[in-house]
Amino acid sequence: MAAAGLGEFERIERFFAPLAGQGGLGLRDDVALIEGPPGEDYVVTTDTIVESVHFMSDDQPGDVAQKLLRVNLSDLAAKGAVPVGYLLALSLPRRCDEAWLGRFAAGLGADQRRYGIDLLGGDSTATDGPISLTVTAIGKVPVGRAILRSGARPGDVVYVSGTLGDAALGLALRQGKYPELGSADRDFLLQRYRLPQPRLALGRRLIGLARAMLDVSDGLVADLGHLCTTSETGATIEAAKLPLSKAARAILAPHPEQLSAALSGGDDYELLFAADASTGSEIAVIATDLRLEITAIGRITEESGVRVVDEQGAPIAIAVGGYRHF
Amino acid sequence: MAAAGLGEFERIERFFAPLAGQGGLGLRDDVALIEGPPGEDYVVTTDTIVESVHFMSDDQPGDVAQKLLRVNLSDLAAKGAVPVGYLLALSLPRRCDEAWLGRFAAGLGADQRRYGIDLLGGDSTATDGPISLTVTAIGKVPVGRAILRSGARPGDVVYVSGTLGDAALGLALRQGKYPELGSADRDFLLQRYRLPQPRLALGRRLIGLARAMLDVSDGLVADLGHLCTTSETGATIEAAKLPLSKAARAILAPHPEQLSAALSGGDDYELLFAADASTGSEIAVIATDLRLEITAIGRITEESGVRVVDEQGAPIAIAVGGYRHF
Repeated sequence: MAAAGLGEFERIERFFAPLAGQGGLGLRDDVALIEGPPGEDYVVTTDTIVESVHFMSDDQPGDVAQKLLRVNLSDLAAKGAVPVGYLLALSLPRRCDEAWLGRFAAGLGADQRRYGIDLLGGDSTATDGPISLTVTAIGKVPVGRAILRSGARPGDVVYVSGTLGDAALGLALRQGKYPELGSADRDFLLQRYRLPQPRLALGRRLIGLARAMLDVSDGLVADLGHLCTTSETGATIEAAKLPLSKAARAILAPHPEQLSAALSGGDDYELLFAADASTGSEIAVIATDLRLEITAIGRITEESGVRVVDEQGAPIAIAVGGYRHF
Repeated sequence: MAAAGLGEFERIERFFAPLAGQGGLGLRDDVALIEGPPGEDYVVTTDTIVESVHFMSDDQPGDVAQKLLRVNLSDLAAKGAVPVGYLLALSLPRRCDEAWLGRFAAGLGADQRRYGIDLLGGDSTATDGPISLTVTAIGKVPVGRAILRSGARPGDVVYVSGTLGDAALGLALRQGKYPELGSADRDFLLQRYRLPQPRLALGRRLIGLARAMLDVSDGLVADLGHLCTTSETGATIEAAKLPLSKAARAILAPHPEQLSAALSGGDDYELLFAADASTGSEIAVIATDLRLEITAIGRITEESGVRVVDEQGAPIAIAVGGYRHF
């Protein structure tokens, strides 16, 4: 979805940021903060997924339900929040019959048990168009401790969890690319595209450690750009340090140009954060505890903009600025 | 939109009520309740409107924005809540250009000032289908005082604010019916269809007076049915007492069969509530204070079901069970 005019970021900035109140953080974050019970803030986020844009018509209804829920839980994870519950708004064409609804609800039920949350309310309506699904998720954090996009400082180390580019490569596999890839690698990448793993445990552990954080949904370079803009900084990323899965490496070996999947591919839903360089050993302990890779990939800079450099420090041109919804 | 299988109510009951947590009130209400700061509960509601279902393609973007916001504020009003803010999720086709967005945002801004609320967050995404817009609205009520759908008792008086059927007749006018109607009456009914007036001041005043309440969005008979089902009661309504506007009476005089607009037409967004018969004088004071008609239209009964009777007490058959989205 290339931009046919203003990108989503510019649209928000121009038309909606002026409408935002204090709790809306000027719409410069993915969430709102609302005063909670004593000692707590609520974190509220909303995300829509649309058929043929965010999922395919032949995806399993249970998988669609879980992707819908998890992209919202990932936004909570990126603030360090514990999920509480969610509201669900469905626009469904008539072909979504009782069998479809039953499988959709079963997917939600399984994830509610997995993440310890409940459905709080909702709305459903008919549409003649594609399936359009919106979740509003509510989480809580200790008061004043939510990790925002703002707060990164020059000299901070930039970290990312897990591996990057898997979801974009999984989507490419679905579209028939790389038929030579082995089945184990194929299954891994397809699964990474199909079902995000919101990094909730990691998010909570990073309260007090990460100065700024978000989840990688639009692509590493684009999302790091959002973090830097909001923090009024820039960043330099070392391409050689990008964490890649074994499966992604199997594709990249004969197709090195596909490094762009790791730099610009969306939908990985890993956490990207900036932390003081002195916190490295604490972050290593968390990685060990959670059995989750956490990789230092660069530094926050005073100079604005996101630069990607090779092992010699020479800049690498970035073709795509991230996934745009418009 | 007649039902092509299960209606919305049955769908919710069957597939989603089992997923609801305590705060979700078993999905038997239009809202969720969440613990707030000391002394307060949050009321959270979500509603979607879809092009060609809830509004027309040639409606003004500013009006669409205000309808979207107000149908959600009406749900807050029906719980006695004061609105705090809202989140906005947009699925927009490419034809919604910057001019459209500018007018849409201007409509939101005007209503934010009118109702004293802020935009807290949101999401926007592209779609190849119709415009689909979701708002999640957050309000607050004194702790434990939200007015639910449950709580009506046999013998309670059933009241409704304002006048009924105007929005359904306004929609009929848009579809070319009643060309003989005078322009003042026409403008009034079109305006009633175009822009709901959430009864927020009334809702707040009814805390401690109304035992059960909701807003009339699906139609009087259908919504009273929801209130009665949740309260485990029934109700009898006197057709002659239904409050009708001067404009609606002008249509009903030569077209008495259109009384169904008042009984079954949706989108009036008036408040429908049950209160002890002893509260009549207090309710009359509120009506005077707010310069808003509040009409006693019937009684809550032990016997389940909603009955409409004529002046002789004889039952009137109700053809349509209310607007169904499926």
